Amino acid sequence: MRNVLLTTEYDGTAYCGWQVQPNGVSVESKIVNAIYNIMQEKVKLYASGRTDAGVHAFGQCANFHTETNIPAEKIPKALNTKLPADIRIIGAEDKPEDFHCRYHSKEKTYIYKILNREYPSPLLNHRVWHIPYDLDTDKMKQVMQLLQGEHDFRCFMASGSSVKDTIRTVYSINLESIEGLITMEITGNGFLYNMVRNIMGTLVEIGAGKRPLEDMIRILESKDRNQAGITAPAEGLYLKEVKY
Amino acid sequence: MRNVLLTTEYDGTAYCGWQVQPNGVSVESKIVNAIYNIMQEKVKLYASGRTDAGVHAFGQCANFHTETNIPAEKIPKALNTKLPADIRIIGAEDKPEDFHCRYHSKEKTYIYKILNREYPSPLLNHRVWHIPYDLDTDKMKQVMQLLQGEHDFRCFMASGSSVKDTIRTVYSINLESIEGLITMEITGNGFLYNMVRNIMGTLVEIGAGKRPLEDMIRILESKDRNQAGITAPAEGLYLKEVKY
Repeated sequence: MRNVLLTTEYDGTAYCGWQVQPNGVSVESKIVNAIYNIMQEKVKLYASGRTDAGVHAFGQCANFHTETNIPAEKIPKALNTKLPADIRIIGAEDKPEDFHCRYHSKEKTYIYKILNREYPSPLLNHRVWHIPYDLDTDKMKQVMQLLQGEHDFRCFMASGSSVKDTIRTVYSINLESIEGLITMEITGNGFLYNMVRNIMGTLVEIGAGKRPLEDMIRILESKDRNQAGITAPAEGLYLKEVKY
Repeated sequence: MRNVLLTTEYDGTAYCGWQVQPNGVSVESKIVNAIYNIMQEKVKLYASGRTDAGVHAFGQCANFHTETNIPAEKIPKALNTKLPADIRIIGAEDKPEDFHCRYHSKEKTYIYKILNREYPSPLLNHRVWHIPYDLDTDKMKQVMQLLQGEHDFRCFMASGSSVKDTIRTVYSINLESIEGLITMEITGNGFLYNMVRNIMGTLVEIGAGKRPLEDMIRILESKDRNQAGITAPAEGLYLKEVKY
């Protein structure tokens, strides 16, 4: 049986998230329906991980097993004819039968975007976290270097998450600010639930001067979610890339 | 009487353009209504120029005469409470009574965005011209330098436009391409109707190899709209800035 890996880009604004939910329309359900329409197969999609309601993706990955004889390079165009304009398949390739998008991912990259200016931007609605008060991005850059490397990131995991092993490695974390648009890019071997949004919320509190720089070490060492900052809104988060 | 200059940003997707039209909702009408709601005055708005249906703006300018005593710096926030999320006032200042946004503009900058890759991007829907075939941006950069300076741009004016003086000066025209996103920025003392879109359409035909490089000089010298390329779609065009 073939095992096909899809790369997908989506605007998460209209969806309850990646995963099928009892209420609300999910990105996953739209793609599963498109596959059914094109291949007449009811498949199970295995994603690299869920994205929450409102979170976007430039390169979410998902695989499924299929009997179709459509060549991989023709699959994106075929599925796109059955998908709404806010979801697109931008790549497809055949993988070994035991390949699994979640378990075999080696590296993930997320982007978080903040618009730091007085007024919100109509051209970036639902695409950024709009922050009207001043952020000191130099402070944010300085303190976020502490997150690089292998750490126990339990303090940045959503409370209620049942994951036991909370040690992850951040390979790189960078921030640039161009005309008020602040972009953080973070790459790691994996991320805990809400980890990127909780890091961003904490960095913003430091950048706004609501917390001292020294807080970052204290928070990391506490391993306590209550010590960290707020959860940054979903709309600024993008799953950029998954590497296998 | 006060004369207030507004700077506005908008996503033009949902509108019939800047100007009030018998059918369709215009950006102008939304702002005039917001002014009426806040100031109880029915004003006439004078814009730097119209933008067509689907065209966006980072910095459209418009002025109006008013008796209001709201300080200029408080006007954006007040009007924004009465505007939909796809239109925002991002600046306001008092100007001399004879100031006119259209007649006193010294310089305008437009941006045109193309997404040059196989599949469209859900995150750039209605924000770019999606072109799936290869464009040679080096060719486009080379040929567009011919447009710099003072020229008779009649060949790039929409047929049917009644403007007599078709001489304009292009101060700068640049193009950059980053991961398939091609951005052209053009600054001049003024632009004829559809001039930027007609230039872009012609550049794309040259970049795609459908026309030789030499065509640009021939087209300019012909002063004939029929010699130039197609009109690029509205959705890739942004009025970036107007200088006074």
